[in-house]
Parts: sequence; C-alpha cells; structure tokens
Amino acid sequence: MTRGRFITLEGIEGAGKSTQVGPLAARLRARGLEVVTTREPGGSPIAERLRAVLLDPANAGMSDMAELLLMFAARAEHLKQTIRPALDRGAWVISDRFTDATYAYQGGGRGIDLGRIGLLEQLVQDDLRPDLVLVFDLPPAVGLDRAQARSGSKDRFEAEDLRFFEGARALYLSRADQMPERYRIIDAARPVAAVQEQVRRLVDPFVDVALDRAE
Amino acid sequence: MTRGRFITLEGIEGAGKSTQVGPLAARLRARGLEVVTTREPGGSPIAERLRAVLLDPANAGMSDMAELLLMFAARAEHLKQTIRPALDRGAWVISDRFTDATYAYQGGGRGIDLGRIGLLEQLVQDDLRPDLVLVFDLPPAVGLDRAQARSGSKDRFEAEDLRFFEGARALYLSRADQMPERYRIIDAARPVAAVQEQVRRLVDPFVDVALDRAE
Repeated sequence: MTRGRFITLEGIEGAGKSTQVGPLAARLRARGLEVVTTREPGGSPIAERLRAVLLDPANAGMSDMAELLLMFAARAEHLKQTIRPALDRGAWVISDRFTDATYAYQGGGRGIDLGRIGLLEQLVQDDLRPDLVLVFDLPPAVGLDRAQARSGSKDRFEAEDLRFFEGARALYLSRADQMPERYRIIDAARPVAAVQEQVRRLVDPFVDVALDRAE
Repeated sequence: MTRGRFITLEGIEGAGKSTQVGPLAARLRARGLEVVTTREPGGSPIAERLRAVLLDPANAGMSDMAELLLMFAARAEHLKQTIRPALDRGAWVISDRFTDATYAYQGGGRGIDLGRIGLLEQLVQDDLRPDLVLVFDLPPAVGLDRAQARSGSKDRFEAEDLRFFEGARALYLSRADQMPERYRIIDAARPVAAVQEQVRRLVDPFVDVALDRAE
C-alpha cells in the first residue's frame, strides 16, 4: 500500500482557497484516488471545539502564546484522528490550511519567533510535512473586501487589520520562495474559473508523478 | 514594590489539597499579605473554557500530545491574565496545581518524555517557577477512595486507573527529592486538621523569611 499524498491550500482571508477544495477533490477522485477533505483549525471533534475557542470574537484578549499552543493542540488531534489514518491507508488528504497558516498568522501576523513555531511543528508532526502546498496569493485589501462581502460577523482573525494580513502574506511568499519544490503560488486575485484552471495545471503533473511512482 | 511569592499545592486526586487553599490563604492574609487563590487547569476565562475540554469525559480519546499542549495553552492564559499581574503588584498567589501536575500526570501518568514537558515549560513560563511547592502525598488507592466518596461522576482524569496515579505520585516525589529547597512533602493520608497543621508548620518559616527580606 502506497502512502497517500498530503495537499494543503493556504492563503489569507478572502483568497478563495476554500472554494477550490471541492473541485480539486473531484478531480483527484476522477483519477481513481480516495480523497479526504478537511480543514484547520479543526478537522476532528476535539479540534473543532478548539476552533470555536480560537475564532470566538469574545476571546479577543487571548495571549499570543495560548493561541499558538491551541493551534498545535488542535493540530495534534487533527493528525491523530484524521490525517495520519487517511494517509496510512493510501487516501489523499486535502486540507484547507495547515502549519503554513501558523507560520503566516502567528509568525508573520503576530510576530512570534519562527524558531518557536518550528520547535512545536517538530514536536507535534515529527517529520510529517505537506507534499504540496498551494499558496493562494492576493493583495490583503482585495481579500478583506471579499471576506467582508460574504459574511456579516467577523471571527477573531477576520477582525485583524491590514498590517496583520500584509505580514501573513509576506510569510507565505517567503516560505514558497524558500521551498519551491513543495510550494506553488496561485494568483488568487483572478476570477474563480481562472484560479481553478491554474490549480488544475499545477496539480495535474504532481498527480501524474505520484501515480507513476505508485505503479 | 517587592514581587509577591508563588505557592502551589500539588497532589493526586483525593489528596485534600483544595481543602487547604482557603485556610492557607487566610493565614497569609492575617500576616497582612494580599493573596490571590487560583487553580489549574483554569484560572482565567479562556483557560476555564479549556479546562472544560480537558476534563470532559466525552473527550476520552484525546491524544496525549493535544492534552499536553492544551495544558500549556491554558497555563499561558493563566499566567498572563492572573498570575503575573498579581505577583507584579506584590500579591501572593496560591494555585491549586501548576506545572508539577503536568510533569506528574502527563509525564509520570501518560509517559510523555519529561524533556518535551521541560521544553514547553521554558517556552511558556520563561524563568517563572513556583517559590514553594507543597506536595500532598498519599497512597493513590486512598486518594481514589476519597475522590469517589465525594462525587458521583468522574472527570477524564479521575477515570484513570491506579497505575496512572502511581506513576503521577512517583513523579511528584522524585521532583520533590531533586529540588528540596523549593519542595515540601505533606503527609496527606492523615486527618484534615493534622494536614492543616503540617502546612502551617512548613509555610510559616517561608513567610517569615520572605517578609524579613521584604523589609
């Protein structure tokens, strides 16, 4: 049994990544793959309870360190209950956000030292990293306009200011730049159909290689 | 302004430490000290929400790593919102459990590597450690009988077996043995009044020294 592949979709609010989870999963299933779609924070019952705490606007005063540890506590559950069992049985996993979001939001946004994030990443994930990271990139002002248009009330992260998201975006781009073999940047400012087409063009060769190797 | 002192009460279920928080606080207040009493997990609004997740018997399948990170997430909040502000203004803090409980329960009970716990301790607390740790020691079988007598339903930790609490007890004793300058062992198998008297005898000289230094 070949281990499945782990694909993550990353980007700031309003980047349109969640919209692309369904079409991407359908495309992989059409190639005969079992696909599990999931999200962070969340993706398992306990992790979803922690998501509620993390996003609740009533918790505006949460310390940066508590936020960081809660993200990784939720991730430990997500990995144990959902991601690792799926990968182990050969399924492909598509997650709407993963640890890159922690580097971007808690690192680039809040200013937490990246070495501390790396330390927790190693503690919780051992050597598990996504096989492919799709970074949906667009100017934060455009993303926030989109996010505002679709929902009335803001969660604790959506309520952050432009500077926070500029920091997050810069971190995403810097990681993509440092690890080009695993990262792909999507121009998320374009219309949904064009974004979907770019995702297809970037993911198809990755699937070809993976299926070729599995034979 | 002299920084306050931080006293923690530790021990397994049924050791009677919570019963001693009130009398100890009253005794310190009688010496003219401002005293804040608190507990873990919990001690601040967000940390209490995390306590509910940690103790909920419905979360029996929680991964050890998620449990460990949740404990420290709650602790980060507790430190920021409650403990550090109190110590900084000169108040004394008495906490019913703190990081020694993590060493005992997650380390001694669950078998998590103590180095990993130490790493999180340093990350979350920097150099903050309790000034005095009172370890309420008794045979786990006695403690569990007491705990069972007082409540009908068990939380997620109370539901653990004797072997878990033997491991926790051994860890508490080993830490007390390694750091005798900060740790005191209370014979918690004795009647409440005798325990209270032993606490008084152990804490009074500590207070004398602290107040003498503060002058």
